[in-house]
Amino acid sequence: MSPQDIVKRMYEQDAFSQWLGIRIVRIDTGNCWLEMTVRPEMCNGFHIAHGGITYSFADSVLAFASNSLGHHAVSIETSISHTKAVYTNDQLTGKSELLKDGRTLAIFQITITNQKEETVALFKGTVLKRELWK
Amino acid sequence: MSPQDIVKRMYEQDAFSQWLGIRIVRIDTGNCWLEMTVRPEMCNGFHIAHGGITYSFADSVLAFASNSLGHHAVSIETSISHTKAVYTNDQLTGKSELLKDGRTLAIFQITITNQKEETVALFKGTVLKRELWK
Amino acid sequence: MSPQDIVKRMYEQDAFSQWLGIRIVRIDTGNCWLEMTVRPEMCNGFHIAHGGITYSFADSVLAFASNSLGHHAVSIETSISHTKAVYTNDQLTGKSELLKDGRTLAIFQITITNQKEETVALFKGTVLKRELWK
Amino acid sequence: MSPQDIVKRMYEQDAFSQWLGIRIVRIDTGNCWLEMTVRPEMCNGFHIAHGGITYSFADSVLAFASNSLGHHAVSIETSISHTKAVYTNDQLTGKSELLKDGRTLAIFQITITNQKEETVALFKGTVLKRELWK
Repeated sequence: MSPQDIVKRMYEQDAFSQWLGIRIVRIDTGNCWLEMTVRPEMCNGFHIAHGGITYSFADSVLAFASNSLGHHAVSIETSISHTKAVYTNDQLTGKSELLKDGRTLAIFQITITNQKEETVALFKGTVLKRELWK
Repeated sequence: MSPQDIVKRMYEQDAFSQWLGIRIVRIDTGNCWLEMTVRPEMCNGFHIAHGGITYSFADSVLAFASNSLGHHAVSIETSISHTKAVYTNDQLTGKSELLKDGRTLAIFQITITNQKEETVALFKGTVLKRELWK
Repeated sequence: MSPQDIVKRMYEQDAFSQWLGIRIVRIDTGNCWLEMTVRPEMCNGFHIAHGGITYSFADSVLAFASNSLGHHAVSIETSISHTKAVYTNDQLTGKSELLKDGRTLAIFQITITNQKEETVALFKGTVLKRELWK
Repeated sequence: MSPQDIVKRMYEQDAFSQWLGIRIVRIDTGNCWLEMTVRPEMCNGFHIAHGGITYSFADSVLAFASNSLGHHAVSIETSISHTKAVYTNDQLTGKSELLKDGRTLAIFQITITNQKEETVALFKGTVLKRELWK
């Protein structure tokens, strides 16, 4: 399967990524670029998004980027630093960088930015590669 | 303000924790115990919850537990290992353990379990303490 | 091989753990308890130990604890929070807690304390299990 | 004080960085580039370096890079993934990248490579900024 077909199949089945309103901008092998818009129901009374929103968005980038390598990929460990507050109506962009692609493991850095190109979160994810997609 | 009042005020303002259906079981100083039920819109076509759901739940435990210490607390770095799949209708329990309570920083371990008392995620969070709640 | 024999063989071959002066207090399956004494050459001019000393000590606890499960274990990801300064002549104790023992992965929490039973570091390690020890 | 003077003063006082044989290649504000050579006493019987050696080297890069920003910087949380084995006589290079420089916090990515320009470790460090160097 092509990287694009793998991600298309994953996304169609992924109700929560759809609830987040994730838009797929570009998929290549080991590479993923997504966008989403922050809505009021993702935020608190000060219009600041829950930390789980940015994590969820970054985790979808990780899932799509790692599976696009061709194996079913399972998240082992992820970490996130929230470096700037995210607000209602912010336009978020998530891009992956493949730091390591081994036989059984892959490591990605995911950077989340807002519409002012400010980094709002730094995410690192390690995945275990399982059987091939087919 | 009492720990219970701090968390009550936070929860009332927190639309996403409400969307998750989080129920507050118990709050003490530096301590938080929450529950939630996994719904279909949080899951994929195989009824497995998105990793962001468990993270978001654990992050709410961290936010409530850390603010209940009496200072406004800001998350600096969090990490999570998903140790077992979470399914639609699972009843999740999240409990905090205060590992370190310093002058400027606090560190928590949050454990998420399902209705069979299996650990589904291990979460660690570090927060920076700001001004006092009042 | 018994957990004790695995660790004995590892320790005899491990020049850096010997340089650290690590003493094995107790080994059981998936469990390790070590001690060491901080020396001047591990410290700076203010008699504070380099962060790498505490990490190295915790990493040896992880290596011994994880291999004692019976498989050759390779570290995938480790993190450490230094919660209190460590000084020359401090007596450090490192103890492991097995948080998750899966088919391919194991996760450990390692706690490092000083002679006053203060926690000086919190370490988390994830390992990949390879072939059996024999 | 200049970034170079801050690091010079730190290094002269740092017995363990000296034991590691760390060589300072270049220091700029928020930026550090170090080298070291792996010796037999840092390795096991298979000539593979202890994980603590690479961590210690990366932690020195973090300490020098973060203090060179002008404030005394204290490590809050660090994580490392060992992506390739390190052997006796390997020539290691450690370079920092400043991911975030805030008022109270700074976050760095440190990459450790060997003489073949292979990445052997990925390290992330978060520091708290204290008083100014003077």
